[in-house]
Parts: sequence; C-alpha cells; structure tokens
Amino acid sequence: MYPKPFKKLIDHFASLPSVGPKMAERLVIHLFKQNPEKITDFAQTLTELKTGLRYCQKCFNLSENEICSICADPKRDRTVICVVEEPLDIFAIEKTRQFSGLYHALGGVLENLSAGSSLKITELQNRIKDGGISEVIIAMNPTTEGDATALYINRILKDYPVKVTRLARGLSTGGDIEYADELTLSSALNNRIKLN
Amino acid sequence: MYPKPFKKLIDHFASLPSVGPKMAERLVIHLFKQNPEKITDFAQTLTELKTGLRYCQKCFNLSENEICSICADPKRDRTVICVVEEPLDIFAIEKTRQFSGLYHALGGVLENLSAGSSLKITELQNRIKDGGISEVIIAMNPTTEGDATALYINRILKDYPVKVTRLARGLSTGGDIEYADELTLSSALNNRIKLN
Repeated sequence: MYPKPFKKLIDHFASLPSVGPKMAERLVIHLFKQNPEKITDFAQTLTELKTGLRYCQKCFNLSENEICSICADPKRDRTVICVVEEPLDIFAIEKTRQFSGLYHALGGVLENLSAGSSLKITELQNRIKDGGISEVIIAMNPTTEGDATALYINRILKDYPVKVTRLARGLSTGGDIEYADELTLSSALNNRIKLN
Repeated sequence: MYPKPFKKLIDHFASLPSVGPKMAERLVIHLFKQNPEKITDFAQTLTELKTGLRYCQKCFNLSENEICSICADPKRDRTVICVVEEPLDIFAIEKTRQFSGLYHALGGVLENLSAGSSLKITELQNRIKDGGISEVIIAMNPTTEGDATALYINRILKDYPVKVTRLARGLSTGGDIEYADELTLSSALNNRIKLN
C-alpha cells in the first residue's frame, strides 16, 4: 500500500532493536517530512559507519586514523592497559571517566583454546614485552566465555612482570537484591567491602 | 568519546521522534555489528525516500511512476474522490480497506484564502469538470485549518452536480468517554446513530 521505497525503509527501521513496525512507520513518515539535505546526510553518515572507521594499529579500538584518539592522547597513563572484548566496551568504560590508561581490544572471546589465534593476544604480549606496563586490567564480559578468556590471558601474562587485575563483580547500582541472580549476589557477598 | 561517524549517526537517530539518546546509541551499536551490505542497503533506501518518489500527475499521491498505483488500478471506483491534505493520509485510509475510490491530495490546508493557490484545488475542479464523479468525500484533519479548508472546498463544489460529504466525528474506538474532549463528545452526541 505504501510505495516501495517507503515500505523498504520501514522494514529496515523495524529490523532494529526496540523498534516495532508501528514505530518504524512513524519514523519513516517523520523522515519523509524532513528536507532532502537532512536525509542525504543521514544516509551518508550511515555509509560512513563502515567506510569511515578502521581499527587502531596499537590497541584495535575503532578509529578514524591509523592510531586511535586514546592511544594518541599524550595525557593518558601509559603504564596501565585495560583489555576488553570489543571496541564498544571501550566506549562504555570511557563514559565512566574513571580510567585514564590505554586499552587493548581482543576482538572477541575464546570459543575454544585452538581458536585463540584470531584474537589479538600476541599483540597484547608484544605491547607488554615492549615494557613500561605495570598493570593489565582484564575487563571481559561477565560470561562463561569472558571468564575463560580472562583465565587464559591471566595464565599467559604470568610470565611477565605485570600486575593482572579484573573488574569487580557485585550488585548493579539501582538494582534490586530481590531480583539479583545467585551468582551476582554470591560475588557481592564474597567481595564485600569494609565500610569503617 | 565515540569516533565521529558513530557520534554523528547517534545524533541522527536521536533526532527521530520517540528515540532518546540512549536508544539511539543502542541502535547505532546494533547497526555497527551488522554486515556492510545491510548498512549500505539501509543508506541507499534512505536516499531513495526522496529521489525514488514523485507526485502522481492525477491525484498528487506519492508515486514511483507518473501515475500512482491507485489511479492506475482498473478495479478502483472512479465515481468517488476522497480529498485529503497529504499523501500520508491516503496510506492511513487505504489501511482501513473501507474505501475503493480515488483520492486527491491537496498538498496542505488553507492558511488564508489568498494562499489557496498553492493547493491543488483547481486540479480537483478540473477532475470534476471532466465528469463521471458522483461523490466527493472531504477528509481533512479535524483541526481549525482542516475545517476551514473543508468549508472552502464545499463552497467551490456547490457549482458542480456532485454530492459532497465529510468524515464523521465522534469517539475514537478504544477511547474513553471520561477523557474525550468536549468538541469530540459534542460531535458524538449530535451525530448519534439509531441502533434498532
């Protein structure tokens, strides 16, 4: 009933998370009423999401240049590396403004030990071999695979004179003890902090 | 903190209705994980929203061709024309599957009588002059401007041998009498229907 370009765009929006068909329709109708320049810019930006970004040669963060803005920033603490699964995790940690060191994006987790070669683990070892690193924070997702990867990296890093830490487990701020899962609540209990 | 193409795309999504900055971020992260072909197609479709559509030469509906699919459909009733403000109203009416006639999109409402020339009113008169039309349904939005435009068209059409009707006013299905505004409730009372 809608013309084809309309229908197709509705389908694209409806394929996004939390966007139902009704909302997709409203979004397309809204867009249709915008001026053509805005829509062209939207489309252009969408294309650049893939073409305008590459991986940083040092830490494998997403970057517009060969070296990402974090690695290139002279104000960052170059003695600490925070190891994450994906560049998107870097954005999440950066938002906390609690970390001023460097990152290393592995590009995923270990599925099995033999598949470890596609992860940027050798590159991490090389950065540590180059010296100057005193602490490696392992910030894998709190999943089975994340935990296995953390253990694997920890084992590899045993040979180097660096402190290896991992993110704390516990209750989510704003969460509800009643609804916390058993593992989270166990972590919160076992890692309890002295208050006075 | 996000690379520029990322940030810019988040801003584009966040400018859409019912999409907050948090949701825009989630949408962009989701898109980033899709394969490049899908994103390119999304961008392409977005561009076509403007470039792939024009106005039907007969009824000024949105169309991929010179004549829209409704005007070109031999199964439509060519004796009834439903006059709407915008092509988007046509899509809404088509969804009801209650109307099988033709349409005429005015391209807006009268802001003042002298500005009437930008609306496709002369084109409507020409279609009626061509003959074969027995009823014109005026389906303007139920607003002050919509009502004024409806009255204006009704006055113009007095000179032609056509029945002129307008959409009923009353309660919305699923609505609540308690929350209906006075004008709507008045219309619902005044236009009450005999049940037996």
